[in-house]
Amino acid sequence: MKPTRLHHLALITDDIDAALTFWRDALGLEVSHRQENPTEQAEIAFLPVGESEIELVRPTAADSGLGRYLAKRGAGMHHVCLQVPDIEATLERLKAQGVELITEAPREREDGTRYAFIHPRSAFGVLVELYELPA
Amino acid sequence: MKPTRLHHLALITDDIDAALTFWRDALGLEVSHRQENPTEQAEIAFLPVGESEIELVRPTAADSGLGRYLAKRGAGMHHVCLQVPDIEATLERLKAQGVELITEAPREREDGTRYAFIHPRSAFGVLVELYELPA
Repeated sequence: MKPTRLHHLALITDDIDAALTFWRDALGLEVSHRQENPTEQAEIAFLPVGESEIELVRPTAADSGLGRYLAKRGAGMHHVCLQVPDIEATLERLKAQGVELITEAPREREDGTRYAFIHPRSAFGVLVELYELPA
Repeated sequence: MKPTRLHHLALITDDIDAALTFWRDALGLEVSHRQENPTEQAEIAFLPVGESEIELVRPTAADSGLGRYLAKRGAGMHHVCLQVPDIEATLERLKAQGVELITEAPREREDGTRYAFIHPRSAFGVLVELYELPA
């Protein structure tokens, strides 16, 4: 039941093209795709590395959660996402241990990925996302 | 020449046992080992997840770089480490692109791992470590 993969590390930035001069042009990672995510009010570029991805996330609205985070903390690491085999069972176990969740029940993306966020207060300052990928 | 793996994500904390109540006991990761690192003035617990590791890092000296970071920024994500096939070639390319390095030449750990740090100023707010593992 434990997490099986560090699925992605999300970095927040105010300028994806500028950030790509480092992550792609200097470091050599490749961009697999880039998309607008209206639900999260963000533009995201995905750079695979091994079995994980670096995600460059640019808030598209200043008054969104991401926009406020960027204004307050500046560019840098935003959250880490761990893949789990059974997100419902994981969330139940976390709740039983008193862990505070941002997402009480799993939400689902269009591609079938189910996800939830754990509050940094319960994860020692780290915003943790969980993914269960579609079978 | 590009990075091949997200080797580890280092989290900084003032209490590894407390942090383990979340990362190990609630989330289900296992601790592969735990050690004092006198060079970095830190105690570190290693929790593998897939081909990566979560590292819980506790500064053992308040006046070290890690100790000052923790005092200033609090617990949370500290750095991400990417494995590269040839660290010298990677550092040369980074320098040629104007990237600021904290470690101008690779350093070597006892186990033969060669490493270097890239300054967050050049990596859009992220402290990036590079690893070349021994053959």
